[in-house]
Amino acid sequence: MTKILIVGGVAGGASAAARARRLDENAEIIIFERGEYVSFANCGLPYYIGGEIKDRSKLLLQTPQSFFNRFNVEVRVQHEVIKINRLQKSITIKRLVDNTIYDENYDFLLLSPGAGPFIPPINGIENPLTFTLRNISDMDRIKDRIHQYRPQHATVVGGGFIGLEMMEAFHHLNIKTSLIELSDQVMAPVDAEMAGFLHKEIRDKGIDLRLKAGLESVKYDNEQLILQLDNGDSFHTDLLIMAIGVRPDVALAEQAGLAIGNFGGIVTDAEMQTSEPDIYAVGDAVEDIDFVTGKSSFVPLAGPANRQGRMVAGNMLGHKEQYQGTQGTAICKVFELAVGTTGKNEKQLQKGGYRYEKVYLHAGSHAGYYPGAEIVSLKLLFSPDSGKILGAQAVGKKGIDKRIDVISVAQRAGMTVHELQHVELSYAPPYGNAKDIINQAAFVATNLIKGDLLPIHFNQIHQLSPEQLLVDVRTPEELKNLGYLDGAINIPVDELRERMHELPKEKEIIVYCQVGLRGNVAYRQLVNNGFKSRNLLGGYRTWLFAQEQ
Amino acid sequence: MTKILIVGGVAGGASAAARARRLDENAEIIIFERGEYVSFANCGLPYYIGGEIKDRSKLLLQTPQSFFNRFNVEVRVQHEVIKINRLQKSITIKRLVDNTIYDENYDFLLLSPGAGPFIPPINGIENPLTFTLRNISDMDRIKDRIHQYRPQHATVVGGGFIGLEMMEAFHHLNIKTSLIELSDQVMAPVDAEMAGFLHKEIRDKGIDLRLKAGLESVKYDNEQLILQLDNGDSFHTDLLIMAIGVRPDVALAEQAGLAIGNFGGIVTDAEMQTSEPDIYAVGDAVEDIDFVTGKSSFVPLAGPANRQGRMVAGNMLGHKEQYQGTQGTAICKVFELAVGTTGKNEKQLQKGGYRYEKVYLHAGSHAGYYPGAEIVSLKLLFSPDSGKILGAQAVGKKGIDKRIDVISVAQRAGMTVHELQHVELSYAPPYGNAKDIINQAAFVATNLIKGDLLPIHFNQIHQLSPEQLLVDVRTPEELKNLGYLDGAINIPVDELRERMHELPKEKEIIVYCQVGLRGNVAYRQLVNNGFKSRNLLGGYRTWLFAQEQ
Ligand SMILES: Cc1cc2nc3c(=O)[nH]c(=O)nc-3n(C[C@H](O)[C@H](O)[C@H](O)COP(=O)(O)OP(=O)(O)OC[C@H]3O[C@@H](n4cnc5c(N)ncnc54)[C@H](O)[C@@H]3O)c2cc1C
Ligand SMILES: Cc1cc2nc3c(=O)[nH]c(=O)nc-3n(C[C@H](O)[C@H](O)[C@H](O)COP(=O)(O)OP(=O)(O)OC[C@H]3O[C@@H](n4cnc5c(N)ncnc54)[C@H](O)[C@@H]3O)c2cc1C
Ligand SMILES: CC(C)(COP(=O)(O)OP(=O)(O)OC[C@H]1O[C@@H](n2cnc3c(N)ncnc32)[C@H](O)[C@@H]1OP(=O)(O)O)[C@@H](O)C(=O)NCCC(=O)NCCS
Ligand SMILES: CC(C)(COP(=O)(O)OP(=O)(O)OC[C@H]1O[C@@H](n2cnc3c(N)ncnc32)[C@H](O)[C@@H]1OP(=O)(O)O)[C@@H](O)C(=O)NCCC(=O)NCCS
Repeated sequence: MTKILIVGGVAGGASAAARARRLDENAEIIIFERGEYVSFANCGLPYYIGGEIKDRSKLLLQTPQSFFNRFNVEVRVQHEVIKINRLQKSITIKRLVDNTIYDENYDFLLLSPGAGPFIPPINGIENPLTFTLRNISDMDRIKDRIHQYRPQHATVVGGGFIGLEMMEAFHHLNIKTSLIELSDQVMAPVDAEMAGFLHKEIRDKGIDLRLKAGLESVKYDNEQLILQLDNGDSFHTDLLIMAIGVRPDVALAEQAGLAIGNFGGIVTDAEMQTSEPDIYAVGDAVEDIDFVTGKSSFVPLAGPANRQGRMVAGNMLGHKEQYQGTQGTAICKVFELAVGTTGKNEKQLQKGGYRYEKVYLHAGSHAGYYPGAEIVSLKLLFSPDSGKILGAQAVGKKGIDKRIDVISVAQRAGMTVHELQHVELSYAPPYGNAKDIINQAAFVATNLIKGDLLPIHFNQIHQLSPEQLLVDVRTPEELKNLGYLDGAINIPVDELRERMHELPKEKEIIVYCQVGLRGNVAYRQLVNNGFKSRNLLGGYRTWLFAQEQ
Repeated sequence: MTKILIVGGVAGGASAAARARRLDENAEIIIFERGEYVSFANCGLPYYIGGEIKDRSKLLLQTPQSFFNRFNVEVRVQHEVIKINRLQKSITIKRLVDNTIYDENYDFLLLSPGAGPFIPPINGIENPLTFTLRNISDMDRIKDRIHQYRPQHATVVGGGFIGLEMMEAFHHLNIKTSLIELSDQVMAPVDAEMAGFLHKEIRDKGIDLRLKAGLESVKYDNEQLILQLDNGDSFHTDLLIMAIGVRPDVALAEQAGLAIGNFGGIVTDAEMQTSEPDIYAVGDAVEDIDFVTGKSSFVPLAGPANRQGRMVAGNMLGHKEQYQGTQGTAICKVFELAVGTTGKNEKQLQKGGYRYEKVYLHAGSHAGYYPGAEIVSLKLLFSPDSGKILGAQAVGKKGIDKRIDVISVAQRAGMTVHELQHVELSYAPPYGNAKDIINQAAFVATNLIKGDLLPIHFNQIHQLSPEQLLVDVRTPEELKNLGYLDGAINIPVDELRERMHELPKEKEIIVYCQVGLRGNVAYRQLVNNGFKSRNLLGGYRTWLFAQEQ
């Protein structure tokens, strides 16, 4: 009879336990969870605070009792594992209700302790009004505070997905909110110009968004906090959420001498085995192999945790399944917008010294003539050599999850942008387009690789040389209503053929339209008539939202 | 200067013309369109009739004038091409306004004449109240008739996507509607049990759905029609839409001696070249190579037409791009439901003698604890040998397009169900699940291939032998509220371990739950305790909706 001990009873741990039981009726399986709850929906916590999820019990997917009934798995909550005795193949546990300590031996040990909120050593940060959000108890504490003290103003530090979700939760509760972010953008997994759409949305909702601002110190004063920022600003707030990121919970692993990687996570092989053969680890506590770069990375997300948990149960019981690397596919709701991403972003590609090209597109979530379509804004990164998809980012009100998921799967399958041209996506007017934005992105990318398109990007527009001429090919009404780029002359695309003689052959004509599509028509006309030209990819819209810093 | 003539100015033809101009500024490009309009949104026609699309002009994406302005393409509407003179490399055209006839020579000829509604030789079918829907003029005629005569009752013959959309349009207009379908299901691209969801939805909306019924004759009488069905039924209707399918428009091609295939479509090679080197053909008029079977097929959809049109322009101008086969990915709105499909269905696989396995799943469109999730019902077909994805069908209120598109791309990339387990789909509570239904389907399929799951299917339940025992593992409340299978005994999954002794070891225990998931837990318990067992895939829900015939 195999004895499996599991540290951590949520995404990775609970999934492993359930799967292990399905595979083996005889194994002894015990979950140790230091918190009060197992199998809870971490990802739902902000939405319960904000009031969108009304029923707290919906967050508790299993209880120790239900786990026992269904899976014959013993769940010991409020049991903290404090030590791994790897030579003895045992762990030492502290019962948190009475602080008693005991040992339990194992054949296999699974670590799924997750990652905890990182709190930097800021002066005054430990105070009754500062919270982090990781589990049900944290959620209850925040909810209680709001309920009892009716805060007028809340501050969230950190513009990652948990920070953004908490910002939205406060907004739902009609609490004025400040969001403080050290870098020049929220939602680090996407590039800054794509985050521009989010910045606009956040500001439009009345959030006090402060980018490039760090929290320097906190003063607790009469049921309020006075926050001091590193840019000199200072203001009062009634509640502070620290959400600047999470760090793998590796105290146990470190103490046991397991290998720890550069990102501070537990190192495992593809079977999720740690440096110690009988000890496996999954989820937020481990480093993953990045699908694109093949290098180590840290991607604390529920999908990988769940799937690794399922897989590792098999591997402890004799299977030999391998985890296939993590793309970091993720999505986040930011008020009316969704922002999604998969693979590498441009910042990462630059930092890693990878060769890449990129295209920007904006197109309808479904056919424009059918009511309710919304603009999908997409950035696709790919290798100019192999054509392989390197990453994608998308923002919009509808259809973001679909586009990111499709590209995620295409990337995982090793598709090139050439192949992506041919993907067959379902089309009827309420759901899609005969040529979906994904096909279109692949067309543009392929044009670019083939040399049929010479691009210019939004951040190169401010540094045009006297040898370049900026031509806006939209209609005069669009220029008037939507704005235009400084120094541009206007020749609508539909007049270009007859007015081409107005343009100087010796200059490079930088054409742009609203999204890049008409720019492409103009660009092709120009080059096929012997002009030098470039098309601003993503058009005025990409440029405009990139200004939202 | 290359001279390109194009027959048909809508999806395939217009796309080819636009692309040809972007590639070549000097080519002479003329589109001949026998109708009054080019570049219109065929797919939007039913929605304009139904009133969801209010603005008729939105359906006209380009006009001859705008085509000329933007693309320097000459569009000759109301010009019917009546003959191809392939030795002379010319076509003969009839100007429909004055019936004059002239010739025009070409370097390359592109045929994109589409497919027309098929009308069987039914007695009395030609009458002022019987309509088909292919283009703007057809739409205007139907709209006018409704406007002027305020029909009380309409009948649609044919339960394909155009028929279903017209049915919905009439319902929107508060016109009582009968839908007549010869086979035992609507929406032939999915299998009958999946169509069951649609049948229920259609009946719930008050539509008079008549399956296995053929229209035998029509009698026009006093601004009404009397329909006689082959099952003896007869009733009055005020308006009749014939939508039993389309046939490739190949009169021209046939006359010119171009090769025609088994489905009656023009045969082309992968470059879309017909049997005559200078004549290309695309869209609804051609046969496509089926992506799964590698055999000829007929898939009259806008996506392939658009992409073939774009591709063929390149090929006429010196490229050598190849069309990569058609999966038939499609989607249709049926009231609140979407129904989507990709690849082959079970009927086709059976007919073709392919080896396949299948799984059914029902799971939330996004996390169940976040408001607004709806059930996605999915059928996945795959090869039990290679694990390759053969096809998928999905029905539900939300997230159908996403699931079908993801599987479509996975299939096109050649992914197996083993690989599909690992796809990384974006997850946050409003958008998805930590283990999406697609991952889950791949888990179940992989279990099945590995022998970790012995399935039984909804249509095998009525023929159980005395050596089999049916066990419902849901809660007693579920049995009471939702119904159950005849002859089942009830042991809730969470009581199974302690009550297992009640079950006979010598019989095969057929377990089922609502969707198959708890059935799987029970199944694994049973087999790991030495019982013979099978799990009803898709559970009670699949069985129940399969009864909707
Ligand atoms: C507010 C919030 C929102 C999120 N939203 C999303 C989202 O939308 N999408 C997404 O993909 N991911 C989201 N995540 C991340 C996701 O929840 C994690 O990736 C996932 O839960 C990781 O699973 P895990 O098993 O590694 O760790 P966890 O689920 O964190 O479980 C680890 C458990 O181990 C316990 N533990 C740790 N050490 C010990 C010990 N020594 N002894 C006993 N028990 C111990 C902890 O108490 C904890 O309960 C969110 C997370 C949070 C906090
Ligand atoms: C009501 C309706 C709804 C639809 N909904 C969808 C949907 O939701 N999703 C989807 O994917 N597809 C849908 N389709 C199908 C889609 O419209 C077609 O697949 C697509 O238009 C085919 O493009 P094509 O260029 O081959 O033919 P068409 O777009 O039909 O264009 C052919 C044109 O050629 C002209 N023509 C034919 N012969 C001659 C000649 N001898 N001389 C001059 N002109 C000629 C015809 O008048 C016609 O305008 C729908 C079709 C209809 C009718
Ligand atoms: C609740 C929890 C214990 C469930 O674990 P689980 O039983 O492994 O997961 P599921 O309920 O999704 O069931 C998956 C199993 O059902 C099977 N299954 C799913 N649908 C099926 C169907 N229709 N027919 C047959 N089997 C099906 C799958 O194959 C899988 O079984 P397998 O692993 O043996 O192949 C675990 O997911 C958990 O604790 N989650 C909460 C924490 C969390 O994930 N947080 C982060 C996100 S908020
Ligand atoms: C209207 C119509 C003529 C347009 O044809 P089109 O110009 O080829 O198509 P689009 O407007 O989608 O433009 C696609 C082009 O823009 C490019 N493009 C798209 N977005 C771009 C962007 N953001 N930046 C740069 N280029 C972009 C594509 O690469 C492609 O150019 P390419 O073919 O040279 O590579 C044609 O689609 C049509 O007639 N449609 C109506 C009929 C129909 O489709 N019916 C069935 C469905 S209802």
